[in-house]
Amino acid sequence: MSLDGVDTPSALVDQVRLERNLQEFAQLADQHGKRLRPHVKTHKTSEIARRQRELGAAGLTVAKLGEAEAYADAGFDDLFVCYPLVGALKLARLAALARRVTVSTVVDSADAARALSAAMLAAGTRLDVLVKLDVGMHRVGVIDDEADRLALAVAELGGLRLRGVCIHEGSVYGQGDPAARRSVGREQVRQLVQTAARLRDGGLPVDVVSCGATPSFRDVIDIDGVTEVRPGNYVFFDAMQVALGTVGRQRCALSVLATVVSRAAAGRGIIDAGAKVLSLDRGAHGLALLEGYGQVLGRPDVLLQSLSEEHGWLALAGELPLAVGERLRIVPNHACAVVSNFDRLTVVRDDEPVAEWSVMARGRFT
Amino acid sequence: MSLDGVDTPSALVDQVRLERNLQEFAQLADQHGKRLRPHVKTHKTSEIARRQRELGAAGLTVAKLGEAEAYADAGFDDLFVCYPLVGALKLARLAALARRVTVSTVVDSADAARALSAAMLAAGTRLDVLVKLDVGMHRVGVIDDEADRLALAVAELGGLRLRGVCIHEGSVYGQGDPAARRSVGREQVRQLVQTAARLRDGGLPVDVVSCGATPSFRDVIDIDGVTEVRPGNYVFFDAMQVALGTVGRQRCALSVLATVVSRAAAGRGIIDAGAKVLSLDRGAHGLALLEGYGQVLGRPDVLLQSLSEEHGWLALAGELPLAVGERLRIVPNHACAVVSNFDRLTVVRDDEPVAEWSVMARGRFT
Repeated sequence: MSLDGVDTPSALVDQVRLERNLQEFAQLADQHGKRLRPHVKTHKTSEIARRQRELGAAGLTVAKLGEAEAYADAGFDDLFVCYPLVGALKLARLAALARRVTVSTVVDSADAARALSAAMLAAGTRLDVLVKLDVGMHRVGVIDDEADRLALAVAELGGLRLRGVCIHEGSVYGQGDPAARRSVGREQVRQLVQTAARLRDGGLPVDVVSCGATPSFRDVIDIDGVTEVRPGNYVFFDAMQVALGTVGRQRCALSVLATVVSRAAAGRGIIDAGAKVLSLDRGAHGLALLEGYGQVLGRPDVLLQSLSEEHGWLALAGELPLAVGERLRIVPNHACAVVSNFDRLTVVRDDEPVAEWSVMARGRFT
Repeated sequence: MSLDGVDTPSALVDQVRLERNLQEFAQLADQHGKRLRPHVKTHKTSEIARRQRELGAAGLTVAKLGEAEAYADAGFDDLFVCYPLVGALKLARLAALARRVTVSTVVDSADAARALSAAMLAAGTRLDVLVKLDVGMHRVGVIDDEADRLALAVAELGGLRLRGVCIHEGSVYGQGDPAARRSVGREQVRQLVQTAARLRDGGLPVDVVSCGATPSFRDVIDIDGVTEVRPGNYVFFDAMQVALGTVGRQRCALSVLATVVSRAAAGRGIIDAGAKVLSLDRGAHGLALLEGYGQVLGRPDVLLQSLSEEHGWLALAGELPLAVGERLRIVPNHACAVVSNFDRLTVVRDDEPVAEWSVMARGRFT
């Protein structure tokens, strides 16, 4: 193979698999009449976001205001910051961004809504706002009466336009069993739809009803009343998604190319990819679902047992040795966490490097 | 306080504490007649490395060849890549670097030594090499007869100059009890010194006898026969070092400034620093020694219980609430892992930002 010219550790993107992943979710969204607003925190690149747009994406979702600014600079003009934006510095930046591109965000408290309103009024601009609902993760969001009160407050505040409601049905990551996951995902999305209906009954404008999580995407895409879906991880998938049963292994589009640099002891190999590259993720949202820190392609007998900063520790279950100098490809547990470490992704077709993409929104944490 | 102009999440370096840390280790090395060759994978900046040099550092240690190249570009001319360098691409880059600056590295197998030799001969240059010893971590390195044979092989190979032996006494991170840690550290360093003596008795040139690990630095600095020490983490220290008893909390020079963005549920707070910023480290070398994912300064009642990608989940033990918008400073569990995520560090004096430093060797993983 001709990855010989790619030094290690590097992050590889299989372009054929990526394209298949992008097309599947775009087509499913289209078939069911939902707008796709992919969460680009997974890849942080311009190239993949452009392809998502070509395939019909109605704007992008980001996790950080800094990511939104990076995408605005890269020519994307409809950005949803699905994260509570708090503090005078952020609100001033948000107002500046809202004058350049179409930007929307979420609120989950009346205090935050009032601060947003004041900042937009001061800047002479207006912001689209979704009320973030908590349908079970208990991370951010409001529900029931509190959601009703907050939606009403947003609708009445100057400088803001209530656009709808949204959730991240992230609880599905905690469900190992596909049937249970489907059931949890659908129940949470139904709660979203019911809340939207109740708010509309109360006379509020709720045009956007938005959910998003890769493992539940196919489970909930047919639910009436949802207008928008925001999956992120689906562009690459990863060992976590395989463990959850979302996809088979052959759909994973991201891998880390690493070299065995030492064998140290019998039954052991050391690779040049450690925690700074692979991250210590063993499941989404802090869940430790997976054994090991990535899946070694083609070597089911090899467990990536632990990570130091710069070293990966392999444990060999069988007799088949690993040679120093041998290269391995590792499907990460959590693709989003791995991409966030790299400045560049190497795009491969048939194991041949064809492009380098900048992870241009990397490090835009604020 | 006037950190109001610093957006969150950001990495803050307390310059007074940093300076105290730098001076203490520099003075101890000097008092005991050891050369200090600090491991700069911890900070990856030019500014701190320059200060280490001013305080007497005899060159720098790096974990990656890409880091060495970055430091060479920044004007540092004596670089020790304390990592087994394997593969044709790396050896060609290493040879090119060896023509620009003084560079040295480690080997832990005869195969690797022969490959290094061939690359240096082909490039018409010569490389200083240390034999990496395994004194208990069983990660990389050789010991006993294997070390003797490898040292002899290096001494006889063209293009290489055997300079000595080195260890990372990283096992000390697994010792919660300070007395046990001291004992393990001293025992491992004595094994290093004994191996060096045996090789010298065999007629081999062993001028450099090098060890390095922040928790054991003070425990082993007086041991005769050690010529060089390579601590890294000491510039910042972190919650892990505090838990190990290396230093008190007031010595930690790195913190992450974060904002409470949501309260979601009773007894809960959500901050805008998650795993992409704080890392999931709970101890060095994959050890899970610490409860939580960082220490919240001034709020011992608040546990940083879990991390999603972009969210930190706080659990409040008492009645004292957290307000949305409130800012917290978090001492990370593992400073090296956190710095590796950031492009910039904000330097503060008396809680006043005074400089921004580029983490210029960040992302140089290859």
